[in-house]
Amino acid sequence: MKIAICGYGRLGRGVECAVKQNSDVELFGIFTRRDPTSIKTLTGASVYSINDILDFKKAIDVLVVCTGSAVDLPLMTPRLAEHFNVVDSFDTHKKIFEHFQKVDSAARKGERAALISAGWDPGLFSVERLYSSALLPDGESYTFWGRGVSQGHTEAIRRIDGVLDARQYTVPIAERLNYIRNGGTDISSLAVEKMHRRECYVVVSDSADKTLIEEKIKSMPNYFKGYETSVTFIDEKEMREKHMSFAHGGTVIRKGVTGYKGENVNYIEYSLRLGSNPEFTAGALVSFARALYRMKERGACGCFTVFDIAPADLSAMTREKMISELL
Amino acid sequence: MKIAICGYGRLGRGVECAVKQNSDVELFGIFTRRDPTSIKTLTGASVYSINDILDFKKAIDVLVVCTGSAVDLPLMTPRLAEHFNVVDSFDTHKKIFEHFQKVDSAARKGERAALISAGWDPGLFSVERLYSSALLPDGESYTFWGRGVSQGHTEAIRRIDGVLDARQYTVPIAERLNYIRNGGTDISSLAVEKMHRRECYVVVSDSADKTLIEEKIKSMPNYFKGYETSVTFIDEKEMREKHMSFAHGGTVIRKGVTGYKGENVNYIEYSLRLGSNPEFTAGALVSFARALYRMKERGACGCFTVFDIAPADLSAMTREKMISELL
Repeated sequence: MKIAICGYGRLGRGVECAVKQNSDVELFGIFTRRDPTSIKTLTGASVYSINDILDFKKAIDVLVVCTGSAVDLPLMTPRLAEHFNVVDSFDTHKKIFEHFQKVDSAARKGERAALISAGWDPGLFSVERLYSSALLPDGESYTFWGRGVSQGHTEAIRRIDGVLDARQYTVPIAERLNYIRNGGTDISSLAVEKMHRRECYVVVSDSADKTLIEEKIKSMPNYFKGYETSVTFIDEKEMREKHMSFAHGGTVIRKGVTGYKGENVNYIEYSLRLGSNPEFTAGALVSFARALYRMKERGACGCFTVFDIAPADLSAMTREKMISELL
Repeated sequence: MKIAICGYGRLGRGVECAVKQNSDVELFGIFTRRDPTSIKTLTGASVYSINDILDFKKAIDVLVVCTGSAVDLPLMTPRLAEHFNVVDSFDTHKKIFEHFQKVDSAARKGERAALISAGWDPGLFSVERLYSSALLPDGESYTFWGRGVSQGHTEAIRRIDGVLDARQYTVPIAERLNYIRNGGTDISSLAVEKMHRRECYVVVSDSADKTLIEEKIKSMPNYFKGYETSVTFIDEKEMREKHMSFAHGGTVIRKGVTGYKGENVNYIEYSLRLGSNPEFTAGALVSFARALYRMKERGACGCFTVFDIAPADLSAMTREKMISELL
């Protein structure tokens, strides 16, 4: 199975590495909007201009679209889905259904198969929310994110006048997590903004008004207002030395009752602790690309989500080995 | 969708309760090997003799087989799979492939669909082992069970002369769990018997030799030998008062590396804490019965495992609601 990567940032490099870990998958090459000759790949993979991508329609089994989720994917995935079987990790939760519909009609037009939002949230966490709510229908689900950098919040800080660089860590509040684990039932205390704090590390210009910047951050609606937010001003050296990690993680908890009168309480907890958020997401994309390829071979067409993928299709194992070793 | 229950023990009663939590599922009735008039159901469901079950082939969409896993299911599921779409929670890991083959040929003969081993281990834990090993192919998986009663080990103690009653709790050893969570790599310390202890509570007859019984338990091969095992003798009153819980649980951990040289370490951890093991298993069986019914409606035939089930089929939600609320 031959995959190609579209977009060679951190996620694209992650996919390049993940391919090495899957012997049934081969990397056809990388497509970029930059000058291909300016790019040196980790593994020596071929680099092509995105402008030439339609010349390779027959050579690529699945195209993994690794461009930015906020601006690029909503345009690029539908455009590419008409010509390639595509997988992306589109992660703006509120716009997924809209994205789904656009990709679906493009894929149907070109008789291709597509899979969107196949990272970890949306992605694995979504799958976990689905399994656990189906098995424990009388219950509540809670999702905690972090500790890890939120790209969207980091960008929001960077847009403030006088800010040179920033990192925003989303941090789950341990007491809230334990409150749920221990059976806490006061739902009003469990809004997203009560479950997380926001830690901001900010580099500013010499002339900047730190008090004003801190105030601007803390009062920013949707992003920081209502959250416990800390702002720490650091210099560029400290930023480089202490804030270059791409670690992330999170937890999904389902609490649900069973029994004749709902007398027994059950918990399902799913946690990720990721040394590298983009590399883990890349691993998910490669597994889901494998599944999509198999579904396409069986005649699938149109857009799918992680909910449509049978787990067996994700694995390189034979059916017998899977049953003997994993079931 | 109409389901029927075959076998009315704890698991069967659990399924009866789980049906109440799923408005798209209706309980046709319960089939038993006992005298149907001797059984009073929790919800007033109809009870039939298993001898008459073939009269109801057309009335039942999915039959959930809730008889004992050790002795009954290997015979009953294949026999029933020729005439009904069946789901079971067969849990003898080493014999699953054999069971699969028998059920598969029976189901194909009768043009029915079957799903085996659809509880939590095998079942949800298997699904978790599959997802996590597919996404992190360079890694190791670890499964811990407990704290909870192991039926097989309990039965093994009960077979000893002089023993009137027993409970065996499988208990994960916290230090081993933390060793893995914290990146421990000495695999030799991670054999199943180093990861769990066995707590035995035993009621014996007045004339029994306690020292001999304790020795017999601790030296029993496959079951206790090699494990840290404690034996506590109690009376019947204490057994009734303190050891009637069906709580159980467990944890699956995947540790896997990503990156160009495998330089980043990632963890996926999945845990269950169940107030009622049989009721939770029953919830799984009902969700998987829903999925099987949908697959059958689409033309599926033969035996399946949890690996073959797309998550979307488990849920009563519409596709749009699923995408908007869970993805």
